[in-house]
Amino acid sequence: MASFSLHGIPVSRGIAIGRAHILAPAALDVKHYLIAEEHVEAEVRRLQLALAAVHRELQTLWNELPKDAPTELGAFIDVHALILSDPMISEAPLEIIRSRHYNAEWALLTQIDELSAQFDEIEDPYLRERKADIQQVAERVLKVLMGSEPLLPKQGELEGDEFLAQMIVVAHDISPADMLKFRDRSFIGFVTDVGGQNSHTAIVARSLDIPAAVGMSQASTLIQQDDWVIIDGDAGVVIVTPSAQVLEQYRERQLAALRVRKKLGKLKKTPAITKDGTQIQLMANIELPEDCEHAMESGANGVGLFRSEFLFMGRGDSMPSEDEQYEQYTRAVLAMKGRPVTIRTLDIGADKPLDQMEHTALNPALGLRAIRYCLAEPQIFLTQLRAILRASVHGKVRILIPMMAHAFEIEQSLAMIKRAKAQLDERGERYDPDVPVGAMIEIPAAALALPMFVKKMDFLSIGTNDLIQYTLAIDRVDYEVAHLYNPLHPAILQLIAMTIAAGHKAGIEVAVCGEMAGDAKLTRLLLGMGLREFSMHPSQLLSVKQEILNSDLSLIKPQMRKIMRAMDPDTIADAVIALQAL
Amino acid sequence: MASFSLHGIPVSRGIAIGRAHILAPAALDVKHYLIAEEHVEAEVRRLQLALAAVHRELQTLWNELPKDAPTELGAFIDVHALILSDPMISEAPLEIIRSRHYNAEWALLTQIDELSAQFDEIEDPYLRERKADIQQVAERVLKVLMGSEPLLPKQGELEGDEFLAQMIVVAHDISPADMLKFRDRSFIGFVTDVGGQNSHTAIVARSLDIPAAVGMSQASTLIQQDDWVIIDGDAGVVIVTPSAQVLEQYRERQLAALRVRKKLGKLKKTPAITKDGTQIQLMANIELPEDCEHAMESGANGVGLFRSEFLFMGRGDSMPSEDEQYEQYTRAVLAMKGRPVTIRTLDIGADKPLDQMEHTALNPALGLRAIRYCLAEPQIFLTQLRAILRASVHGKVRILIPMMAHAFEIEQSLAMIKRAKAQLDERGERYDPDVPVGAMIEIPAAALALPMFVKKMDFLSIGTNDLIQYTLAIDRVDYEVAHLYNPLHPAILQLIAMTIAAGHKAGIEVAVCGEMAGDAKLTRLLLGMGLREFSMHPSQLLSVKQEILNSDLSLIKPQMRKIMRAMDPDTIADAVIALQAL
Repeated sequence: MASFSLHGIPVSRGIAIGRAHILAPAALDVKHYLIAEEHVEAEVRRLQLALAAVHRELQTLWNELPKDAPTELGAFIDVHALILSDPMISEAPLEIIRSRHYNAEWALLTQIDELSAQFDEIEDPYLRERKADIQQVAERVLKVLMGSEPLLPKQGELEGDEFLAQMIVVAHDISPADMLKFRDRSFIGFVTDVGGQNSHTAIVARSLDIPAAVGMSQASTLIQQDDWVIIDGDAGVVIVTPSAQVLEQYRERQLAALRVRKKLGKLKKTPAITKDGTQIQLMANIELPEDCEHAMESGANGVGLFRSEFLFMGRGDSMPSEDEQYEQYTRAVLAMKGRPVTIRTLDIGADKPLDQMEHTALNPALGLRAIRYCLAEPQIFLTQLRAILRASVHGKVRILIPMMAHAFEIEQSLAMIKRAKAQLDERGERYDPDVPVGAMIEIPAAALALPMFVKKMDFLSIGTNDLIQYTLAIDRVDYEVAHLYNPLHPAILQLIAMTIAAGHKAGIEVAVCGEMAGDAKLTRLLLGMGLREFSMHPSQLLSVKQEILNSDLSLIKPQMRKIMRAMDPDTIADAVIALQAL
Repeated sequence: MASFSLHGIPVSRGIAIGRAHILAPAALDVKHYLIAEEHVEAEVRRLQLALAAVHRELQTLWNELPKDAPTELGAFIDVHALILSDPMISEAPLEIIRSRHYNAEWALLTQIDELSAQFDEIEDPYLRERKADIQQVAERVLKVLMGSEPLLPKQGELEGDEFLAQMIVVAHDISPADMLKFRDRSFIGFVTDVGGQNSHTAIVARSLDIPAAVGMSQASTLIQQDDWVIIDGDAGVVIVTPSAQVLEQYRERQLAALRVRKKLGKLKKTPAITKDGTQIQLMANIELPEDCEHAMESGANGVGLFRSEFLFMGRGDSMPSEDEQYEQYTRAVLAMKGRPVTIRTLDIGADKPLDQMEHTALNPALGLRAIRYCLAEPQIFLTQLRAILRASVHGKVRILIPMMAHAFEIEQSLAMIKRAKAQLDERGERYDPDVPVGAMIEIPAAALALPMFVKKMDFLSIGTNDLIQYTLAIDRVDYEVAHLYNPLHPAILQLIAMTIAAGHKAGIEVAVCGEMAGDAKLTRLLLGMGLREFSMHPSQLLSVKQEILNSDLSLIKPQMRKIMRAMDPDTIADAVIALQAL
C-alpha cells in the first residue's frame, strides 16, 4: 500500500513506530482483546447465547404488553426482533470472531460501525435515523454480554496484550475517562482527528510520556486497522505505511532521543539550584498513587498536584468510600517518603464529568464544577476531606481547593474542613491538625482578588490551563479556537506575576501547576516572575531541572520589565526566546 | 380550581395579569392562531390533506426501495405508516381543531405533546424512545402543512391576536431566537422553568418591558393551558388561578405602577445632568431598527449598542445581503435623527447561534463566536462592514467590534474595515471615511491589556454581561451556578474601573452597555467610577436618568475608595446601597 503522511498538531514529544488500532467512539466503552485460536468457537458460542437471550427478552416484552397499548408499541418490538434475526447482526459478527479473533463485544461493535456507515449514506433523513434502532439492539446484546464473563479469560487477554504492545491508538477523539483506560495498557502512541495542544488527550499523552499528534482531521478514516504508522510527536506528523528507508531514519532518531534521555537521567539526584544559588522546588503532578513511583524516579521534591478526581472516574454509579480514598491517599503519602503530597479536592464537571453527573449545562466549563459541585454536595466533599485528613498521619499532606473565586467559597471550604476534623475527633480518628490548606488560582476573579486569598490560605497554586481558558475566553479543547490559546498573552503574564508577588508579599508559597510549569521553554520566564515552586508531570521534570541549573536570575531579572510591559505577542515571544540564550 | 403560587427569580419588573399560554419546545417553531368558527372545517380539511400527502410520500419511499435494501428499511416505513393511520394522529388532532379552534399545526403539536407525555411514563427504555418515531411522523406532516398556506388567513389571525393579547407565555425555556418571534405579538408576560437573572429570556423580557419570572422549576407542568395567572415581576412570584380578592390587590398595584411611569415620562426631555453639573450620555441598546422609536420616545442621546446579530437570526439558511443590511442600518440611522448609532458587528455563537452554524463546541461561550467567527468568515464580515459604512452617509454611525482579546484581532479588524472601504471606493459608493471604530471590553484579557486597545480604538464599550461571565467563570444562563453571578465581585469592579480610567486617560470615550448600565441601583456606583456614558434598554432609561438627576458626584467620590478596596461582598453591597442614600 502507498505511503502517505498527515499533518496535525504535535502535542507530546518523541517518536512512536507501531501498528494502527482504530477505535470507534462506542468501542471505547467495551473490552478489547484477542481470542486464542483454541477458544474462538467458545467465544462465538458466547455471542450466540447473548443473541438468544435478547430474543427471549423481546418476546417477554411483547407478551407483557398491556391490552390497551398503542399498536405501535408491538410494531417497535417487531422491528427490534427483525433486526436481531437479520444475518448482519446474527451472523456477520460471528465471522469477525472467527477471522480476526476479536472478543464478542468488539466483534459486534465492529459490525455495527460498518452498518452505521452504510446507513449514513442513505438519503432519506428518516430512514437514515433508523440506525439508532440497530444501535439500540446492539446495546441490548452488549448488556447481556457484559453480564456474562468470557469463558476463556486469561490466555486470550495475555495474547491480546502482546498484540497491543506495538499498537498506536487512532481515534476521532478520546475523552479523559477513556484515556484512563489506556494507563494500564501498552499503547505506544496516540493519533486523534480533533484536539489541540491542551486537549485532554494531549495532556494525558504527555503524562504517559508517549508521542501523540492531534488535530489530524481525517486520520481515523484514512488510516486502516493494522496499518504501520510512525508518529513524529515533535513535528506533529503521522506517516502511514512508511517505506523501509523512512522507517530506518525514524528508528535512528528514536535511538538518539533515548541517548538524550539517558543523559538527563543523571540529573535525578542533583538539587535544582540556579547558577546564582537560588533553590527551586520541583514537584510532580499525579493522577493515581502509582504515579508516585515515576515521581520519585524523576527526583521530585514532592507531589504538587494529586488530581484526586481520577479516583472517582469510570466507576459507573459508585463513589469511592472514605476508607477506599484513605487507602489511596495513604499509598501516595507513603510512596513519597516524607515529601509533601498536595491533594487537590474533587475537580469534576467540565471535561471531566463523573459517570453519575447529569450533563445538562450548555457550557460545562462555566458551570457547576470543582468546589462549586463540592459545596453543593457536602457529603461527598466531607467524605473526601476526612479521607485526606486521615492520610495526613502518614506524612506531609496539603489540601488544595480548585476553582475558588468568591469569599464565601473560601469561608465555606474552611468550615467544611473544620467540620470534617470534628467528625474525625468524634470517631477518635487521628489526623494532622495543621494540614495546610491552599487554593488554586485559576479563575481571573481569584487572581484579581488576591487579598481575600492570602489572608485565609496557607499556600496558592496557579492552574495556568484554566486561568488561560477563562482569561482569554477560549475553550482549550475546542480546536476551532485553539489558535487563540496563548500562554504569553500579556493579560496572562500579568495575572501570574501578580499572584506570585501577592503570595510572597504575604509570606505564603505560590506554585504553578498548569502546563506552563512543565514547559522548559517557559522555565526562565517563570523564574523571572519570581516563581520558586514548579509542579509538572514527572516526565517533564528533568528537562525543566536542566534549564534551572543553566539559569542565572541576575541575568534574567533585568529583562523582565520589558516582557511584562509589552503588549505585542511577537515582542513577548521574542523576548522569552531571548531569555533562553542568556 | 384551587389557587396556588410559585416562587422563582424576578427578572423583569411589573405586574402582568392574563391567561397562561403553555408552549412546548417544539411548539415554538410553528405558527399559533385561532380559527374563526366558520373556517374550522376548512382547517380540518387542511390537516386531512396533509396527512394524506404524507401517506403517499411513504408509499413512494416504499416503492423506490432498492431490491437489495436491508429488510429493516421496509419495516421502518411500515412503522411510520402505522403511526400515521392510528386514530391518535389521524383523528385526535382534527378534534382539537374543532373543539379549541387551534390552527392545524398547533393542533397536531398539542396532540403530539400529549402522546409524548404518555410515552415518558413507559418503563422499558427502548420502547420509551419510540416516541422519536412519532415525532418524526409529526414532522413529516408539519413540513407538508407549512408548505400549504392556510385557507383562511386573515380573519383567523386577527381573532388569534385578540385572544393572545391577554396571554402570558409559560414555557420550560425560551431561546433568544424564539424570543425574537414574540416581539411582534402581544404577550404580556413570561414565566419559564429555568433561567436566571441574566438569561436571555430575562434580558429580552426587560427589553420588551414586560414582567417576567424565571427559575420557576415546574411551572410549565403545574400551570394548565388557559389558567388565569398573575406575574409579580418585582417579587418573582407567580399566582395561578388567583382569588377575586388577590386579583383586586394586583390590579391596584398595576395602576400605581402606571402612575409612577407617567411621572418618569415627564423626564423625557430633561438633560441627564448630575446635581453638581456633570452631563451624562444616556444611550439605547436596540436589536432591530424599529426599536429606535422606543429609544427616541425615552429621550436617548443615541444608540449605544445595535445588536446586529438579530438581523441574522431565524432566517434558516439565508444571510441578509449587503443591500438588505444597508437598508436596516439606514432605517435606524434615519430614525435617530442625527444622534449617533453604534452598530455592533455580528456577535453570534454561544447562546445566539445562527441557524446555519453547526453546534459542535462543548463550551460555545468559549468557542468560535463574534469577531472570532467574523475573522474566520471574511466574506460575511466584509459584507456587514460595507453595509454599515454605506449607512454612515445618512448620519452618525460608529462600528463596535465584540469579543476582542488579542492584538492581531485588532489589527485584522481594522484591516478588514480598510478593505471594505477600498471595495466601496472601487464601486464608487459613498461613506463617512472617519467612522469611529470601537471595541467591546468583555473578555478579562482585554480589560487587562488596555494599552493595546486605547492606542488603536476610537472608543470602548464595556459589555458587563460577558465580562462577569468570563471573569467569574460562570455561565450566566446556567441556573445551577446563577447564585455565583455577582456584578459586585471586587474583580469585576476593578476591571470596569480600570477600563474607564485607561480610556479617559487616553482621551477616548468609554461606555457601559451591559445589564449593569440599566440597573438604577448601580447608577451611582458607575458614576463614582467615572462613567459618563450609559447604554441600556430604552425602558430603563428614565429611571436611570432620575437617579442621575438626584446624584451629586462630590458626595459619591469620597465613598469610592472604600468600595474599590473591599474584598467582602457584604461590605461592597452595603456600601453600594449606602450610595443611594447620599
